[in-house]
Amino acid sequence: METATVNPVHQDCFIDATQRESFYRILHNRRDVRAQFKPDPIPDEVLSRVLHAAHHAPSVGFMQPWNFLIIRGAEVKQKIHAAFAEANAEAAEMFPQDQQETYRKLKLEGILEAPVNICVTCDRRRAGPVVIGRTHLRIMDLYSSVCAVQNLWLAARAENLGVGWVSIMKQQAIHAALGIPEHIIPIAYLCIGYVSHFYARPELETAGWLPRLPLGDLIFFDQWGQSRTADSEPLIARIRQDAPAPQP
Amino acid sequence: METATVNPVHQDCFIDATQRESFYRILHNRRDVRAQFKPDPIPDEVLSRVLHAAHHAPSVGFMQPWNFLIIRGAEVKQKIHAAFAEANAEAAEMFPQDQQETYRKLKLEGILEAPVNICVTCDRRRAGPVVIGRTHLRIMDLYSSVCAVQNLWLAARAENLGVGWVSIMKQQAIHAALGIPEHIIPIAYLCIGYVSHFYARPELETAGWLPRLPLGDLIFFDQWGQSRTADSEPLIARIRQDAPAPQP
Repeated sequence: METATVNPVHQDCFIDATQRESFYRILHNRRDVRAQFKPDPIPDEVLSRVLHAAHHAPSVGFMQPWNFLIIRGAEVKQKIHAAFAEANAEAAEMFPQDQQETYRKLKLEGILEAPVNICVTCDRRRAGPVVIGRTHLRIMDLYSSVCAVQNLWLAARAENLGVGWVSIMKQQAIHAALGIPEHIIPIAYLCIGYVSHFYARPELETAGWLPRLPLGDLIFFDQWGQSRTADSEPLIARIRQDAPAPQP
Repeated sequence: METATVNPVHQDCFIDATQRESFYRILHNRRDVRAQFKPDPIPDEVLSRVLHAAHHAPSVGFMQPWNFLIIRGAEVKQKIHAAFAEANAEAAEMFPQDQQETYRKLKLEGILEAPVNICVTCDRRRAGPVVIGRTHLRIMDLYSSVCAVQNLWLAARAENLGVGWVSIMKQQAIHAALGIPEHIIPIAYLCIGYVSHFYARPELETAGWLPRLPLGDLIFFDQWGQSRTADSEPLIARIRQDAPAPQP
């Protein structure tokens, strides 16, 4: 089977340093792409690998609550783009006056330019009324579908494909444009395609909208708000040392 | 800087076939670990890389809403384990009579055995009242923290560390055990450590609880429920061909 090279499952599969380095290279160079999509088609074998990666996300009680709605038709893309445009105009008005101009200049989606759009959904009834691990936290099914999104995103980056997550839409507009039933939740609307280039940093960081937070400040030990304990210093020192260089 | 090898960020970083293969090897061999934890400590440099991977997840409007609460103290672990035990007893009762015995035999957490537990949270007030991309789908901040969980999980696998997500707890019990304020949402309670072995397949699949769904059945085109379109056959054929061999 051709996928033996990219879909291997082994008992006790050991990951070596070179493989680990490749993984981090992919993870740290993943971006949310909006403006760099090229029209080149995505080969079926590439799209298949990316979708299998999504399908091998963890899911609560092995529920696999996701579907993947692949959008390639111009008419449907236009409907989705109209839903974005309406919500985006509303969104601009919500920001403080001095931020509105900056907001309106940001390119926040590539719906029409990306050759493929994928809507990842969550079927809340999948696997019946009682699901292992979902008895007390009902929201776990939605989280499972988000894990599938993140697997898809990283796999796409491994294939040198850009992905952008468009969230500036009313939930109801997505249901309407894609004919999604009420009990199915659209989790992510993704634009996917090859790109002219990947940025080295997230665009909102580069644009000065928000800085990368120092990871060391986000870590607590044993209790919320407890930044330091008797044995926490070496780890925090290491985390600060490992932080990527600040944006030049 | 020592992390140059694992935290590289480049303009236009190209991923080659060997690197891609390493990535898929890690992704497809990730498991939800419950019973195979070893007590060996996790070196600080390894934990640092895993946490940096989580911190480099996508987040809506670059909000980075996560914190990482690292639990190593026996007393806190005991409280969390008690919260699990209480919820798990309730959970068993929710299943049909004929499934309850099987459910009670499943080992569903490794809270006390794993050397490190990490609670990933979401601060819904991070980055102020209006966040780019969160104006219409308020839940996007929770989804961002889930992306951090999945990045952490995959990075841990790249480091040959097992991770188990424990979701059989009441939200309020997690708040209480960890002193988490009301407006901070605990997203995932994770058990992390080196393992005696990784299974080749998800445990619930191996146990016959649920089968892996055929990915080809979960794909629609342009509209919900539309399984086939004029040009969809080659992709679906490819997806079916790429599916891992069924469980022996």
